Amino acid sequence: MTDQAAFQRARSAQAKQARETAILDAARDLAGRRGIREVTLTDIAAEVGMHKSALLRYFETREQIFLDLTAEGWREWSAALCADLAQHEQAAPAVVADAFAATLSARPMFCDLLAQAPLNLERNVSTEAVRAFKLVTLEEVARIGGELHRLLDLTEAQAVDTLATATSMAGALWQMATPGPLLRQLYTSDPRLGHALVEVEPRLRRVLTALLIGLRAGTP
Amino acid sequence: MTDQAAFQRARSAQAKQARETAILDAARDLAGRRGIREVTLTDIAAEVGMHKSALLRYFETREQIFLDLTAEGWREWSAALCADLAQHEQAAPAVVADAFAATLSARPMFCDLLAQAPLNLERNVSTEAVRAFKLVTLEEVARIGGELHRLLDLTEAQAVDTLATATSMAGALWQMATPGPLLRQLYTSDPRLGHALVEVEPRLRRVLTALLIGLRAGTP
Repeated sequence: MTDQAAFQRARSAQAKQARETAILDAARDLAGRRGIREVTLTDIAAEVGMHKSALLRYFETREQIFLDLTAEGWREWSAALCADLAQHEQAAPAVVADAFAATLSARPMFCDLLAQAPLNLERNVSTEAVRAFKLVTLEEVARIGGELHRLLDLTEAQAVDTLATATSMAGALWQMATPGPLLRQLYTSDPRLGHALVEVEPRLRRVLTALLIGLRAGTP
Repeated sequence: MTDQAAFQRARSAQAKQARETAILDAARDLAGRRGIREVTLTDIAAEVGMHKSALLRYFETREQIFLDLTAEGWREWSAALCADLAQHEQAAPAVVADAFAATLSARPMFCDLLAQAPLNLERNVSTEAVRAFKLVTLEEVARIGGELHRLLDLTEAQAVDTLATATSMAGALWQMATPGPLLRQLYTSDPRLGHALVEVEPRLRRVLTALLIGLRAGTP
């Protein structure tokens, strides 16, 4: 390859990356304002100022864009959680559960994505896109699992169960906690439906505290 | 009201109920064969031999049909679980967790519905349909909660947390366990992706056993 060709290729790769970043930024902004379920590919294309057919040269589907944001969410959340856990030389289950609940509930879009990924996102992309996504989550699960082993002496299998519970519950509870204005009004106006109003952080903290205590006690 | 009018009204109510039952049966059959996400309102209408517009006189939306099946699923699962738990005068957390995991994993369509309800079903029906659905779930939560109190001395709040965990995890794990043939092949062919292959029953049993042990130990 000549210097000229190498330069052209680098510049083209750089331009492609800039476009992808702009598309992800637009999707993130729109989803932050409206919620993921309300954002279409046409909306994203309009926000970034591209034609939809041009956008499809960078991402296969709407779902691939949001699966990429889910991978980004895993990296960002894992870094924040591990930074939090790294401050402790040792920690009781409640302290670890608190770190999980606080960092997850502070990331509402990530919670939404965690529920959408297995139901919708992973089913509307290529297997290569799923492979890339799964490799990111595996890496972050291993990183967080290392902290759970260091602080609470959890085995790898126990750490994987804890992460599956934390992320699945964060996704499901977030869906219940944000039912939209009409249902929220129903739940507050009918005293029988008090249970339907869910708060993500305290419930996640309670469930994970009990889970970690139970895992440390060992299963009989 | 004359006898004649009363008779007409009763017959018409009976006919309406028969139609509704036929529609729910058709939706249940189709979902059992294909999975809920693949079943449209047009499919259900064709299966029951009605025009789509006629079907809409009985149910508001496709989602109302599946929300009704979710309510039915709650009643049927709760009865099976409570019958199972009622056989014990006392039971260790692992025995109770086992009953939850066995009865939930034996009901794959209910697991699928448990994940779909807060994400999709409750958002595409009238508030009255959601109210009716929530009242069914509250009743069954109270019934199962009574068994958890009797066997493990859980408080009402602890029972509600346990049920939220059991049903949310059953829904999320079922979605992960049934990724479709292409992804299943990816997960079995790439040794790095072993973690992506999830089995609902053993993981649910492990998580709920630890949760119940931790709840009984009390949160520090």
